[in-house]
Amino acid sequence: MNLHVPNASASAPGSALLAISGGRDSVALLHMLVSAGLKRLVLCHFNHGLRGRESGQDAAFVRRLAVHYGLPCEVEKADVITWAAKRKVSLETAARTLRYDFLHRMAAKHAAARIYLAHHADDQAETILANLCRGTGIGGLKGMVMETNSTPALCRPLLNKTRAEIADYVQKHGLSFREDSSNTSPQHRRNRLRHEVLPLLNAVYAREVSPLIVRLGKQAERDDDCLQQQALALIQEEGLITQEGRLRVTAKLRSQHPAVLSRVLYFWLGEVLGLPGLDSESLEAASSLLLPGGVAKMNLPEGRHLRRKAGYLWVTEPT
Amino acid sequence: MNLHVPNASASAPGSALLAISGGRDSVALLHMLVSAGLKRLVLCHFNHGLRGRESGQDAAFVRRLAVHYGLPCEVEKADVITWAAKRKVSLETAARTLRYDFLHRMAAKHAAARIYLAHHADDQAETILANLCRGTGIGGLKGMVMETNSTPALCRPLLNKTRAEIADYVQKHGLSFREDSSNTSPQHRRNRLRHEVLPLLNAVYAREVSPLIVRLGKQAERDDDCLQQQALALIQEEGLITQEGRLRVTAKLRSQHPAVLSRVLYFWLGEVLGLPGLDSESLEAASSLLLPGGVAKMNLPEGRHLRRKAGYLWVTEPT
Repeated sequence: MNLHVPNASASAPGSALLAISGGRDSVALLHMLVSAGLKRLVLCHFNHGLRGRESGQDAAFVRRLAVHYGLPCEVEKADVITWAAKRKVSLETAARTLRYDFLHRMAAKHAAARIYLAHHADDQAETILANLCRGTGIGGLKGMVMETNSTPALCRPLLNKTRAEIADYVQKHGLSFREDSSNTSPQHRRNRLRHEVLPLLNAVYAREVSPLIVRLGKQAERDDDCLQQQALALIQEEGLITQEGRLRVTAKLRSQHPAVLSRVLYFWLGEVLGLPGLDSESLEAASSLLLPGGVAKMNLPEGRHLRRKAGYLWVTEPT
Repeated sequence: MNLHVPNASASAPGSALLAISGGRDSVALLHMLVSAGLKRLVLCHFNHGLRGRESGQDAAFVRRLAVHYGLPCEVEKADVITWAAKRKVSLETAARTLRYDFLHRMAAKHAAARIYLAHHADDQAETILANLCRGTGIGGLKGMVMETNSTPALCRPLLNKTRAEIADYVQKHGLSFREDSSNTSPQHRRNRLRHEVLPLLNAVYAREVSPLIVRLGKQAERDDDCLQQQALALIQEEGLITQEGRLRVTAKLRSQHPAVLSRVLYFWLGEVLGLPGLDSESLEAASSLLLPGGVAKMNLPEGRHLRRKAGYLWVTEPT
C-alpha cells in the first residue's frame, strides 16, 4: 500500500500522537507509521467506558502493542454516559468531544505537532453522505481533510484507502486487532450508514461507491476553496467589514454572483461575528437584504435580526 | 399546493405538451395545469410496450382523461426491447431515448414551445444520489433543471414538491390514476434507489431527506454556474481557443485556481471539440499539462492524445 506520511522521517522535530482504538484501522496505521520510519510516536487510547469489560480489554491490548513497538502509551478513561446526560448531548457527540479533548491535552504534554487519525475512504464517504442527508450544504460535501492547518495538525494518511485495502494490509502483515462491538451495532446513525446504506448502494451499483463519493467530495472542496478565496479577496479589497462589525454594501458587492455573495455573508456572520445556527437558507435570505428596495430586516436564529440601513448591514442582539 | 406554472395564461402563444404516463404524478400535473388556466395542452402518452396488457390499459386510461378534459391526445407504441437489444443499450436508456424522440416529434407537429414533465423532488433526489454514486462529478449534483433553455423547453413545475405532497393533492381532488407496476419492481437501479435507498435514509435520519438533497443540488448548481461563467469570460478575454481548435497556454490561464482551470479544459475538450468520455480524472490530469516542465503528453479516452508544445495544447486523433 502506497502511503503518504507527512514528516515521517526520524529527524522530524517533535513527537506525534496516534489516536488508537486497537481496532483494525488504527492498528494498520500504527504499523505503517512505524514502517515509514516514524520514531517519536505516542500511542493515545481513550476508553469511552461504553462497552463494559471489553473497553478494559481494548486498553490492555493497546498497552501490549506499545510494549511490542517500544513506544510510550497514554490511556485515559471517561464516563461518557454521565457527561452526555449532564449536558443533554448525544453519546456520539459526548464521546467525540471528550476524545478530542484528551488528544489535545496529550499533544500539549508531549509537545506533539501532529495527531494521526485512522479515518479511511469509507469513513469519508459516510461523513459526506451524512452531511448530504443533514443538509449542511456544499461545504459539508468535502468531508474530513487529509491534514488540518491547526496546531496540533490532525493527519489522516488513510483517507484515500478503502476499508478493503486496509483489511488486505492487516492480513498481509499478520497484524492482530480488536473487533469493536459498537461498530457492528446498528444503533448509531453512522453505523447504519456503514452497515446498511453503503452496502445497499454498493449492491445497487455493483461496485464500491465510496471512492466515487470521496472524489466528488474533493471536487466540492476545490470549488468551495476557489469561491471562498474570491470572497475573502473581495472583503479585503473593498474593506467590507467595519471595525464595529458591520458590512458595507458596495456596488461591487452587490454585483457579485450569488455563489460568492453567500460566502461573503457566511464569513461575516459565521466567522467574524461567530453567530451560531447559520444554514444555507438563512444565507440565501440574507442575500436579499443586499438589494436596494428589498426587505430591510430579517430574522436570524436565536432571536437576532439582520438589518439594512444607509448602505450597511448589521446584526442586532435579542432584546 | 402553490404551483409555479410558467406561461400558464390562456393567451400564451402556441400550445404545450404534457408527457403523461397515467400515473399519479402526471395525473396531478394535468389537473394543476388545467386549473392554472392552460388551454392549449396536448396529452402525449408513450407506450413502452414493456408491461404487456397493462400498457394498453394505461393508454386507454389516458385517452379517457383527454376526453374528460376535452384535450387532444397523442399515443404512440414502440418495441423498446427489440430496439435496446439491437443497439446493446439498457432498457432504461432505450425507453428514455424513444420517449424523448416521440415528445420532440409531437412538439414539432403541434408547434409546441414547451413540454411539461411530472418529475418531482423525490425523482430529483434519486437523480442526484444516482449521479453521486456514478461519479459524474459536481456538475451531476445539480440534477434536473426546472426549465431548460432548449427548444422545445422541458418544464418541470413539480420539481420542488415531494411525492407525499403530490399524493395529498391527488387525494384532496379525488383524482384517479394508474399504478405503474414497473415502478414497484426493484429491477432497475432507479427503482432500487426509490424503494430501498431513500426509504432507508429517511428511516436513519427520521425525516424526509430528499428536500435536503435537492437543496444541496441547487447550491452545487449555483457554484458550478459561477465558476463556469468565470471560465467562459477568461476564454473570451484571453482568446484562449484558436481557430484550429488549439488551447493557448497563457500566464493568466496558468495562474487560475484549479476549479476554474478544470472548467476551461472541460469547455474546450467537451463542448468545443466534442470529445466523449471525459471524466473528472482526465480533466485533472489534463491540468498538469499546463505546467511548464511537466509531462507534455497524456492519453485521452478512445485512443486520442493531449499534447503540449510551444505554448499550445492540442488533441491528436487516434492513428
